[in-house]
Amino acid sequence: MITDRTQVTAMIQSAKVKKGVKWAHVADLIGQSKEWSTAACLGQMAMTKEQAEKVGDLFELSDEAVAWLQIAPYKGSLPTAVPTDPLIYRWYELVNVYGTTLKELIHEEFGDGIMSAIDFSMDLQREPDPKGDRVSVVMSGKFLPYKTY
Amino acid sequence: MITDRTQVTAMIQSAKVKKGVKWAHVADLIGQSKEWSTAACLGQMAMTKEQAEKVGDLFELSDEAVAWLQIAPYKGSLPTAVPTDPLIYRWYELVNVYGTTLKELIHEEFGDGIMSAIDFSMDLQREPDPKGDRVSVVMSGKFLPYKTY
Amino acid sequence: MITDRTQVTAMIQSAKVKKGVKWAHVADLIGQSKEWSTAACLGQMAMTKEQAEKVGDLFELSDEAVAWLQIAPYKGSLPTAVPTDPLIYRWYELVNVYGTTLKELIHEEFGDGIMSAIDFSMDLQREPDPKGDRVSVVMSGKFLPYKTY
Amino acid sequence: MITDRTQVTAMIQSAKVKKGVKWAHVADLIGQSKEWSTAACLGQMAMTKEQAEKVGDLFELSDEAVAWLQIAPYKGSLPTAVPTDPLIYRWYELVNVYGTTLKELIHEEFGDGIMSAIDFSMDLQREPDPKGDRVSVVMSGKFLPYKTY
Amino acid sequence: MITDRTQVTAMIQSAKVKKGVKWAHVADLIGQSKEWSTAACLGQMAMTKEQAEKVGDLFELSDEAVAWLQIAPYKGSLPTAVPTDPLIYRWYELVNVYGTTLKELIHEEFGDGIMSAIDFSMDLQREPDPKGDRVSVVMSGKFLPYKTY
Amino acid sequence: MITDRTQVTAMIQSAKVKKGVKWAHVADLIGQSKEWSTAACLGQMAMTKEQAEKVGDLFELSDEAVAWLQIAPYKGSLPTAVPTDPLIYRWYELVNVYGTTLKELIHEEFGDGIMSAIDFSMDLQREPDPKGDRVSVVMSGKFLPYKTY
Amino acid sequence: MITDRTQVTAMIQSAKVKKGVKWAHVADLIGQSKEWSTAACLGQMAMTKEQAEKVGDLFELSDEAVAWLQIAPYKGSLPTAVPTDPLIYRWYELVNVYGTTLKELIHEEFGDGIMSAIDFSMDLQREPDPKGDRVSVVMSGKFLPYKTY
Amino acid sequence: MITDRTQVTAMIQSAKVKKGVKWAHVADLIGQSKEWSTAACLGQMAMTKEQAEKVGDLFELSDEAVAWLQIAPYKGSLPTAVPTDPLIYRWYELVNVYGTTLKELIHEEFGDGIMSAIDFSMDLQREPDPKGDRVSVVMSGKFLPYKTY
Amino acid sequence: MITDRTQVTAMIQSAKVKKGVKWAHVADLIGQSKEWSTAACLGQMAMTKEQAEKVGDLFELSDEAVAWLQIAPYKGSLPTAVPTDPLIYRWYELVNVYGTTLKELIHEEFGDGIMSAIDFSMDLQREPDPKGDRVSVVMSGKFLPYKTY
Amino acid sequence: MITDRTQVTAMIQSAKVKKGVKWAHVADLIGQSKEWSTAACLGQMAMTKEQAEKVGDLFELSDEAVAWLQIAPYKGSLPTAVPTDPLIYRWYELVNVYGTTLKELIHEEFGDGIMSAIDFSMDLQREPDPKGDRVSVVMSGKFLPYKTY
Repeated sequence: MITDRTQVTAMIQSAKVKKGVKWAHVADLIGQSKEWSTAACLGQMAMTKEQAEKVGDLFELSDEAVAWLQIAPYKGSLPTAVPTDPLIYRWYELVNVYGTTLKELIHEEFGDGIMSAIDFSMDLQREPDPKGDRVSVVMSGKFLPYKTY
Repeated sequence: MITDRTQVTAMIQSAKVKKGVKWAHVADLIGQSKEWSTAACLGQMAMTKEQAEKVGDLFELSDEAVAWLQIAPYKGSLPTAVPTDPLIYRWYELVNVYGTTLKELIHEEFGDGIMSAIDFSMDLQREPDPKGDRVSVVMSGKFLPYKTY
Repeated sequence: MITDRTQVTAMIQSAKVKKGVKWAHVADLIGQSKEWSTAACLGQMAMTKEQAEKVGDLFELSDEAVAWLQIAPYKGSLPTAVPTDPLIYRWYELVNVYGTTLKELIHEEFGDGIMSAIDFSMDLQREPDPKGDRVSVVMSGKFLPYKTY
Repeated sequence: MITDRTQVTAMIQSAKVKKGVKWAHVADLIGQSKEWSTAACLGQMAMTKEQAEKVGDLFELSDEAVAWLQIAPYKGSLPTAVPTDPLIYRWYELVNVYGTTLKELIHEEFGDGIMSAIDFSMDLQREPDPKGDRVSVVMSGKFLPYKTY
Repeated sequence: MITDRTQVTAMIQSAKVKKGVKWAHVADLIGQSKEWSTAACLGQMAMTKEQAEKVGDLFELSDEAVAWLQIAPYKGSLPTAVPTDPLIYRWYELVNVYGTTLKELIHEEFGDGIMSAIDFSMDLQREPDPKGDRVSVVMSGKFLPYKTY
Repeated sequence: MITDRTQVTAMIQSAKVKKGVKWAHVADLIGQSKEWSTAACLGQMAMTKEQAEKVGDLFELSDEAVAWLQIAPYKGSLPTAVPTDPLIYRWYELVNVYGTTLKELIHEEFGDGIMSAIDFSMDLQREPDPKGDRVSVVMSGKFLPYKTY
Repeated sequence: MITDRTQVTAMIQSAKVKKGVKWAHVADLIGQSKEWSTAACLGQMAMTKEQAEKVGDLFELSDEAVAWLQIAPYKGSLPTAVPTDPLIYRWYELVNVYGTTLKELIHEEFGDGIMSAIDFSMDLQREPDPKGDRVSVVMSGKFLPYKTY
Repeated sequence: MITDRTQVTAMIQSAKVKKGVKWAHVADLIGQSKEWSTAACLGQMAMTKEQAEKVGDLFELSDEAVAWLQIAPYKGSLPTAVPTDPLIYRWYELVNVYGTTLKELIHEEFGDGIMSAIDFSMDLQREPDPKGDRVSVVMSGKFLPYKTY
Repeated sequence: MITDRTQVTAMIQSAKVKKGVKWAHVADLIGQSKEWSTAACLGQMAMTKEQAEKVGDLFELSDEAVAWLQIAPYKGSLPTAVPTDPLIYRWYELVNVYGTTLKELIHEEFGDGIMSAIDFSMDLQREPDPKGDRVSVVMSGKFLPYKTY
Repeated sequence: MITDRTQVTAMIQSAKVKKGVKWAHVADLIGQSKEWSTAACLGQMAMTKEQAEKVGDLFELSDEAVAWLQIAPYKGSLPTAVPTDPLIYRWYELVNVYGTTLKELIHEEFGDGIMSAIDFSMDLQREPDPKGDRVSVVMSGKFLPYKTY
């Protein structure tokens, strides 16, 4: 009996290690970006029936698990409010160090409002560099203004 | 008596509102990107003597405040571990929702290690869009591999 | 020297008690709803120059304070993550008790996405009732779907 | 052996996904609003014997589970004090941003007291809008005045 | 400039120590119970104009302070979520040890609902006892049932 | 293998729901108040051998479970420091709102010291009231003075 | 204007450093143990009028401060729930490491109940030891049994 | 498969209740104080091979469990930073109320440094008293001075 | 089904106790330092295929477990933000007491930046000392300067 | 009036920035290592009279401040349990990632016990390296074994 999406995430992670599948392969299979596809497999996005079935075939999931992939999940992928994993912590640190900077610059350019985390896309690339390759991430979110009423 | 950098940040914020200065102007003045310049004014980066003096002139800071701008500050710009401000929270949410995705994709591409938050730069732009303009942020950090020893 | 918006909020609250002003009067003055007007005076919204000046006249604020009213503020009006005030706690409790219900029903009606807290309006009314009058609040927020990419 | 209501909630959620049941259907079945019915299935309300039995039939629950549905549950549906799920967080944010506004306006209209979260009802509707449909939620709670004694 | 009720509470506490006033005397003065009167002076209740003026005279408060006493305050009298003071902690401990007992017995007697903390009164008395006098507190709150809708 | 008292509490709660037993009946059975009896069944008090055996018979517990009922348990019945359940939260709120009031009044009457939460008894009754029945709780605890030494 | 006891504690600590007074001297002066006397000066105990006046003379406190020394204070001397100071942390660690041991042994000897922290005394001595002198602390608290009722 | 010491502690606690063993008996068996022996059985100390085997025989533990008893455990016996159990909380309260007192008196006697919680012993005794027996605990720890270097 | 690396860590810890293996032996086996090897076995580092297979043979792990050893793990080895174990707490205390000192001295020597915790190695040795042997730990991390851009 | 050591730390930090003093210079002046000297100036160590006077002369402190430097301070230099400053966080991360490794290796070499954070010294050096200079820190603490008693 599957009672929540994290169980399906665990099944996928287990199968992925056992089979040595790559996220890039999952992305190809369902015709979405590797960023969205990974987030969806890790329990952060709802899949269409077709996407879920392809992922189910790849990871040999039960019908029940495939049904869960199509349900909007309870999101949030981190076990603690301040992440302990060094890679993820660096992103939290960026928000902590640059948070007020992002706020000031977005307000200076757009006025009061936010950058959407929903109408949002992300693209992660390797940026070759003689001093050591870099991780380059482009984040794009719609600006949503606060309205008066 | 100034006893910590947050007091200088408060002086700059106060003067900026009173004078109606823009961050883009500060960036021009000290010849750095608007991202770095804003972070430096908000107490997250140490300035050179020359930068600090220009900023001091602009915001009419005391010599003591100008000295503090050149000291490596105790960093972290947020008053709470989970930020309450909606704009900054969206960034925290992105780390929460996409944190494990970033981890998986960076490891898939580069192996075990992290993306540096120190050897790092950021560029924020307005991306015109007929459905509503977007905020586009490019983040670039050196990949640092864990080493065996 | 004003160094952050909460100082202006305190000035407004102090003047409001001293003068016995009503929020409904502030709303009339600036031509917005009482909900938006109160939130703006309590440091959660940025005002236009004209609104800020009218509010400044009413509460006898300095020019500096009036300038701060036009800046997008660091939002969040509660001193603790779980509010201690009984009236505000009841709203937190509604989120706690009905949170998963809201999530299920919005997903059932709209699919995966959120109700915007930015493109949002609120209307609070007294609802006469022989068994004791009721507080009726209508909240309306744009549905924002998660997109695949 | 069932030892707490969350186990019954998990059974219902599992059966709901497997069978593809809609909350609106549950509401019809037991003759209550979809808001109350969903909250009750998610472990926040106690059902009558008749309601519990109908829900038990629908989701194929054991007699023991049906007995638990009639017990006043330990309420609270969120795993963390500040919710990580973006949809539910938006509601928490509304309380954080508008909490003091709600407090001021209710006190201005009614005097010192609270809006009940017990003698309370809620109605969630889709509000068609050419710029994108909206979620509209009406919340109605009895005003309870503090008394002197 | 008074900007929040806790400042008035501090003024009252300071004056009470300096003048050696007793809470029982405050209660007599304003014609309410000693429990309500103390809570009101400690910033948890709103006073009428007449009560506030009498309290203001007694503690030699300014007109501004007297105005604040008539405003519904931001309630919650403890500096930490778990109180450190031994006397107050014992009450927290009672909630922790007997919380589920109170829940079970109220539900057994009344069904699902709560005991109101708003439509509530409290009476504290010394109960003479040869083995050592006892503190006896009677708490009385209206039962509010959850309703279906 | 039973390794802690909470497992026995779970067994009792499960059996109680299955059999439809009332706490008042348990109290009669073991000849104690309903308050103490409920607390003891919920893992907050140690029973005598005779009490434990009667409770064991009633709920069909194993000998091992009956042995655990006689052991002084690790007390504290709430899963979080600030309780999420609305009924129990109201009690926490009373401590938060009236905590300093209780402190002041007990000190005014008795001097420095505490009201014992150990040498303590509690009696919960329904208080009929035409405007809606009330929950009335009498709490009685020995006053313990701080001593100088 | 003194508004809480911590201000008096700060005055005493400041005067003590300036004058180089020893706690042992304070104890002699007021005829109590050095443990109780120190705790009282640090804001954890209420003094008699006579004790307060002697302490006031020694530390040159104002009459208002002397009045505060006679009021039962809001107790708890640590700024964080887990103390950061290494000396005090060692005591917290003892509670953490030996807490369940203390519980088991007290229950084995006395049955269910607690050791009072109110009817309590403490005596700290230097214990000479060739391998390095030791701190020896004797703590004595009345056993208080839980009662059935 | 045993994967951590808490599992062995649970086995011992379960066997102790089933067999009605006393800690004093365990202490005799392994020739150590009852304080150390209890702490060791509760997972806070490492045993020698001989001690572990005797304890293993007494509680009928597997060879694997006996091996774990000889491993230095991850210490800390409390489930929450602030303990909820009333008996253990009283010790935490003593640290909270008397923490700064202990600090002052140890520094006055010994200078800057700490009392060791490692080179430490404890002795708990019943102290007969006509007004009610007392718990007397002697704690002895080596003083460790901070050194300059 | 293995769903996360902590399960493999538990398997290794269990096998290590059962077989009495030493970490120094694991280090020899895989040709790395004992520090890195231990961290890798405890779930903090990713192994190469060859290392993982050798460790798998030693601890009799399944193929699935061996596959997990080669995956970059979710790092962080402590169950609480402030560690309760006395040995590990001492290290946390060093960061707490000396944190600002490390910051000042590194900035004085190198300017603004950090010491890498990724391009990092550690060597722990016994340092014989007539007054009691010492633990000596050498930590070496690359200095990474903040850059302007 | 100085009421706690953090005020003296603030005075030193302010004077240090104004005068451009280096920690290495302070160390020379008082004849101690730069590590100890910095920690002492930052409020973590007690100075001798002679050291305090030299530091007082250098930073132009009042006699009262010089007296405070000789008092054992309330230690702990970080404003939050998990530090937000990136440099200090890296050290916290090392404890988090390598904490269990340190524990295992110290126990393997020395048996159960801890490395002292009191009988402790630290030496920080620049380690030249063609790939980028490194920070090298040697930490040395006495091993303290747990004793049986």
